[in-house]
Amino acid sequence: MPEGPDLMNAPVDAATQLELDRLYAGFEAENLAPLWTQLGDLMPMVPAPKAVPHVWRWKTLYDLARRSGDLVPVGRGGERRAIGLANPGLGGAAYATSTLWCAIQYLGGHETAPEHRHSQNAFRFVIEGEGVWTVVNGDPVAMRRGDFLLTSAWNFHGHHNDTANPMAWIDGLDIPLAHYIDSGFFEFGSERVTDEASPSISRSERLWSHPGLRPLSVPDAQVASPLAAYRWEHTDAALREQLALEDEGYPATLAPGHAGIRFSNPTTGGDVMPTLRAEFHRLRAGASTDPRHEVGSSVWQVFEGSGTVVLGDTEQRLETGDLFVVPSWVPWSLHADTQFDLFRFSDAPLMERLHLNRTYVPEVSR
Amino acid sequence: MPEGPDLMNAPVDAATQLELDRLYAGFEAENLAPLWTQLGDLMPMVPAPKAVPHVWRWKTLYDLARRSGDLVPVGRGGERRAIGLANPGLGGAAYATSTLWCAIQYLGGHETAPEHRHSQNAFRFVIEGEGVWTVVNGDPVAMRRGDFLLTSAWNFHGHHNDTANPMAWIDGLDIPLAHYIDSGFFEFGSERVTDEASPSISRSERLWSHPGLRPLSVPDAQVASPLAAYRWEHTDAALREQLALEDEGYPATLAPGHAGIRFSNPTTGGDVMPTLRAEFHRLRAGASTDPRHEVGSSVWQVFEGSGTVVLGDTEQRLETGDLFVVPSWVPWSLHADTQFDLFRFSDAPLMERLHLNRTYVPEVSR
Amino acid sequence: MPEGPDLMNAPVDAATQLELDRLYAGFEAENLAPLWTQLGDLMPMVPAPKAVPHVWRWKTLYDLARRSGDLVPVGRGGERRAIGLANPGLGGAAYATSTLWCAIQYLGGHETAPEHRHSQNAFRFVIEGEGVWTVVNGDPVAMRRGDFLLTSAWNFHGHHNDTANPMAWIDGLDIPLAHYIDSGFFEFGSERVTDEASPSISRSERLWSHPGLRPLSVPDAQVASPLAAYRWEHTDAALREQLALEDEGYPATLAPGHAGIRFSNPTTGGDVMPTLRAEFHRLRAGASTDPRHEVGSSVWQVFEGSGTVVLGDTEQRLETGDLFVVPSWVPWSLHADTQFDLFRFSDAPLMERLHLNRTYVPEVSR
Amino acid sequence: MPEGPDLMNAPVDAATQLELDRLYAGFEAENLAPLWTQLGDLMPMVPAPKAVPHVWRWKTLYDLARRSGDLVPVGRGGERRAIGLANPGLGGAAYATSTLWCAIQYLGGHETAPEHRHSQNAFRFVIEGEGVWTVVNGDPVAMRRGDFLLTSAWNFHGHHNDTANPMAWIDGLDIPLAHYIDSGFFEFGSERVTDEASPSISRSERLWSHPGLRPLSVPDAQVASPLAAYRWEHTDAALREQLALEDEGYPATLAPGHAGIRFSNPTTGGDVMPTLRAEFHRLRAGASTDPRHEVGSSVWQVFEGSGTVVLGDTEQRLETGDLFVVPSWVPWSLHADTQFDLFRFSDAPLMERLHLNRTYVPEVSR
Repeated sequence: MPEGPDLMNAPVDAATQLELDRLYAGFEAENLAPLWTQLGDLMPMVPAPKAVPHVWRWKTLYDLARRSGDLVPVGRGGERRAIGLANPGLGGAAYATSTLWCAIQYLGGHETAPEHRHSQNAFRFVIEGEGVWTVVNGDPVAMRRGDFLLTSAWNFHGHHNDTANPMAWIDGLDIPLAHYIDSGFFEFGSERVTDEASPSISRSERLWSHPGLRPLSVPDAQVASPLAAYRWEHTDAALREQLALEDEGYPATLAPGHAGIRFSNPTTGGDVMPTLRAEFHRLRAGASTDPRHEVGSSVWQVFEGSGTVVLGDTEQRLETGDLFVVPSWVPWSLHADTQFDLFRFSDAPLMERLHLNRTYVPEVSR
Repeated sequence: MPEGPDLMNAPVDAATQLELDRLYAGFEAENLAPLWTQLGDLMPMVPAPKAVPHVWRWKTLYDLARRSGDLVPVGRGGERRAIGLANPGLGGAAYATSTLWCAIQYLGGHETAPEHRHSQNAFRFVIEGEGVWTVVNGDPVAMRRGDFLLTSAWNFHGHHNDTANPMAWIDGLDIPLAHYIDSGFFEFGSERVTDEASPSISRSERLWSHPGLRPLSVPDAQVASPLAAYRWEHTDAALREQLALEDEGYPATLAPGHAGIRFSNPTTGGDVMPTLRAEFHRLRAGASTDPRHEVGSSVWQVFEGSGTVVLGDTEQRLETGDLFVVPSWVPWSLHADTQFDLFRFSDAPLMERLHLNRTYVPEVSR
Repeated sequence: MPEGPDLMNAPVDAATQLELDRLYAGFEAENLAPLWTQLGDLMPMVPAPKAVPHVWRWKTLYDLARRSGDLVPVGRGGERRAIGLANPGLGGAAYATSTLWCAIQYLGGHETAPEHRHSQNAFRFVIEGEGVWTVVNGDPVAMRRGDFLLTSAWNFHGHHNDTANPMAWIDGLDIPLAHYIDSGFFEFGSERVTDEASPSISRSERLWSHPGLRPLSVPDAQVASPLAAYRWEHTDAALREQLALEDEGYPATLAPGHAGIRFSNPTTGGDVMPTLRAEFHRLRAGASTDPRHEVGSSVWQVFEGSGTVVLGDTEQRLETGDLFVVPSWVPWSLHADTQFDLFRFSDAPLMERLHLNRTYVPEVSR
Repeated sequence: MPEGPDLMNAPVDAATQLELDRLYAGFEAENLAPLWTQLGDLMPMVPAPKAVPHVWRWKTLYDLARRSGDLVPVGRGGERRAIGLANPGLGGAAYATSTLWCAIQYLGGHETAPEHRHSQNAFRFVIEGEGVWTVVNGDPVAMRRGDFLLTSAWNFHGHHNDTANPMAWIDGLDIPLAHYIDSGFFEFGSERVTDEASPSISRSERLWSHPGLRPLSVPDAQVASPLAAYRWEHTDAALREQLALEDEGYPATLAPGHAGIRFSNPTTGGDVMPTLRAEFHRLRAGASTDPRHEVGSSVWQVFEGSGTVVLGDTEQRLETGDLFVVPSWVPWSLHADTQFDLFRFSDAPLMERLHLNRTYVPEVSR
């Protein structure tokens, strides 16, 4: 990427080239590599991700997941009937972006995905259906449409379908990051979920889901949110109120016609997990967002409504359930044809904790 | 308080005493004071507060407040028809403890307490009645039984009674601390409240009272909680669930039969205001707490039910509305005759932020 | 302090006055006090400290300390031959300001001040002399001219004079604050210092006084600085370099001709102790500072040189060793006649931790 | 890695296999990948780094660097005559570990490496020689044996050799991490260093290298250390004192015979840069360390002395200048034949900020 004359890689005469070839062979023999031949790739002027923007269609995902349900039993060893988004730029690995994993998980009627735990942080987001309970450290958490559900690092968890009907949802994790930085631990647990009850709300919610109220029995900050479920009725109400306040003339939205909430850890006010940020966005019909470059990558899923996204230079139409990824520094903008509800998760906490976050919104002439 | 021979204040012969008298006169003339004559008072072995434990009866307070309502108009200059608890140990100042102010405030039908702001942190807690709106920076906040309402430092606020009936509640502030450390600023605002609407919930709640959800438009930590009202239905539900979880065999309560919540700042998970902590406690009928010494002082109000409190060596019966104060390091314990609901506020954040907090629960032979 | 008509304290007719008298008598009988009669005193428009600006002369202090040395033996019970600055506004208590204690301490040849510990934070600053070792948790710390020495909360400490000559220095503590908020604990220790060695530097310095380097054996943040002594040669060098950098055209000083350093906790970068800030200032001959209002109080001592201080409306000349106090919000400014070196300590961490800090520097027409 | 029967990847009949093949082809066509075939690789039971332990010999590195000095001019485009350690497990990329870059940089007599800046954090460590100045934001910083020198993110920096003799040192950066997470920005600066002076200490040190003292002109916490150079005489003294204190019977060392310091940011007490930790270790002759597993990787260089390192199952001898890398979770231990001084840097801040750090020291029977 560096422009201008490159003194260090300049053409040389044949004798020098011979010497250079021997030098470079020496580097290779000794497990060394010169910076001057690799600088442009290693240290680009702005982030140059291998991952590319891409859209996956919910219908396609769901069909393949359903066929997997017919063909692949779920159980110990494979652990989850989860099918990961494999970014076309990343050579076939099941990485949505360089740091983020996103999969559709499918559980047939009365099936169980066995319990395990891992140091990777995980969540579920439900776009349709119900009937599955995620059991987190023995606490059964109902999964329903619009819910955002946590299984943060090193908590045992399994899933079981309490009904005769299949259910699918998306999983988000920091698997690629953990794999790359070599931080992952994994442990098997029970083959059945350890509590097969099917309460409508979890014990975690009964303890933690009261606005601004903390149990005195847990006074300290927790690394990850102790609240296992963020229910759709709360998310929907929060977004609705922001737009209503905007209509009444009060500051509440992120930008005109653009409401948004961040899912947060009630013991810190910060992100739900140390590596992952999760948000929900609602655009009014007709609203658009400004093109924005951000350090770090994200995955979006349309929850309801339709519109378009511009990713770099390409515009794509989006319908309910469609997923897309935004690699680092690729400018993105949204346009809503109808009221447009979108779930998003990203590696923003990683960037912020390392002070690597930057945002750039080009001035637009309107 | 120091025991043993005091070499420095020991008896001396007459000639030396004359010299000493001249020395001490010299100290006084030069605005000096020796440590060795004052050490025991200045630096006791354990905190030796001037404030004493004391109980105020709600009925008495309410009657005097009502009579004030008949005799004293509310308005600019005096600002509030508030009658402060004056700790018997503190010489008549309206200080509940050395750091805490607590008053009953009374507003007659259709009266208004004018707007002002101050660097002191303030809250309201409502034990009965309704019909008054606290207007915080132009946002009308309904006051109803069981609600905990914030007007943190330097926010303009006034109160107006939208009904024909009087209403009374308690105010809590850090006035004594601010007065002592000379940190207080005060500014008058509008003589009328700046928004006379009477919505059932405030704009602050519409933006902030969704469990675990933060508006994307306010991403940073706030010094004080942006949530202006913590409603009784949430507090009650949180306490009820803790006791239910205890019944089901799960950890949730502070101690057997003792549920409790802390009111918190959703942007930090910490206390609602930098100087004041607020909590709500519920004891099952028959439950007791262990005697506990704590650095820092607190004010309690019985919200519902009856029981007893032991403060130092003295036991007192408590009924709905009664208030009591616990000075620093005075051991306290509660016993519930019925289900016993109590509101508490304290200067715990002051002690914790200065690393002065300590707790001591003597071992009890049972 | 509130101006304008005071509706609530307005003149009334005789019958109403009789009722009011009965009401106020009722308040008093029930340990209550109305806000509306006290508001102006309790909640002034800006801080209105009882403490006043004042200057104490080193020569006067030293003479009285020396006479105390002749008349008052040092020992267990009185603990320290320390003579505190008693602010003329604070009724004779040995309080320099409402939160700060400052005393001259005097130890005759071969005397020992016995060991004790307390939850109050303490330091020493040495303006002249040497020969005393402060022993902090068994670590002997030499005291020499210009040194700033810590004995933070709950560390045992005593002092012993290893020479035949007396020595005097100043002590700074947060005694008034601790006394007021009832946070103080005290415990006697050994009557002799527990290590009578007289090394030129302490073990604490050997472990911690290496710029930017921390021992791997103590990886965590410490509540108070683990460095027991900040030596004059380092302070002097830091100030000298700031002025030299200013001469060379680089940013380094606080204002033209005004160098300054803060003594800091190497494990946090923050203040040396949770309640006290300590600084050293150097003004070039001829330099002045702008009048400045600050929330919180401070004590200054001239270390070397001469000049003047304006405190509110009053200007006073200052010579080596003179001490002065600045109560909260009283504007202060300094003018240097010679190079002017001053030590300062304050309660700034208290104000900052409670988010009560404010500064105001009026625009000056020059 | 998961053991036991793998239900999801179990053998199937031919018809099913045909269906499965079509399913997997569908995954590939749609840019999807199933978790159940990849779980063991993606989520191992403990970290399973691709990077391997490896030792590079200083003599080999230096010889190749010198030959590069003869053959490759330094200048704009290639920017630095730096030759990176290429971990044999990482396929030829110039990555010492998955997150860390380490290179030998070589500058001939009177050569200049041009100025640039980047969001990657960088430092230099000098094992021999002198005569080069690193110019950081216009501040010339002398490089001498044993010095640790910072050029943290987004500060312009270049190097120039003020002498006729070549000099070599090592560079450490977070290039692989930044490359992987796509966070890097780069900008060219001046082709010459912007200040060609050759002072013995930098302006940064004159402002910041005074133990426990901070300039009042920079009161806030800084993301990276403002101290550009940590000089050998301070590091050596700190280590020497730790061992002397141990000899005297006081706690000071990390373990018997094992002294160590962390280079720290004086404005926070934390690591020098958000992504990199740097330490210096000294073992007495004959001392050993316990085998230790740590999440995260590190690079070590022997500064002085000789001994051995055990990396996993392999023991290697080490001499002055030798470099070795420890990938995540590979157990390492050191044994000193002589007094053994080693510099180390690691990605520990990354792991700690994401709460992914773990350490395991197996119990050893001695």
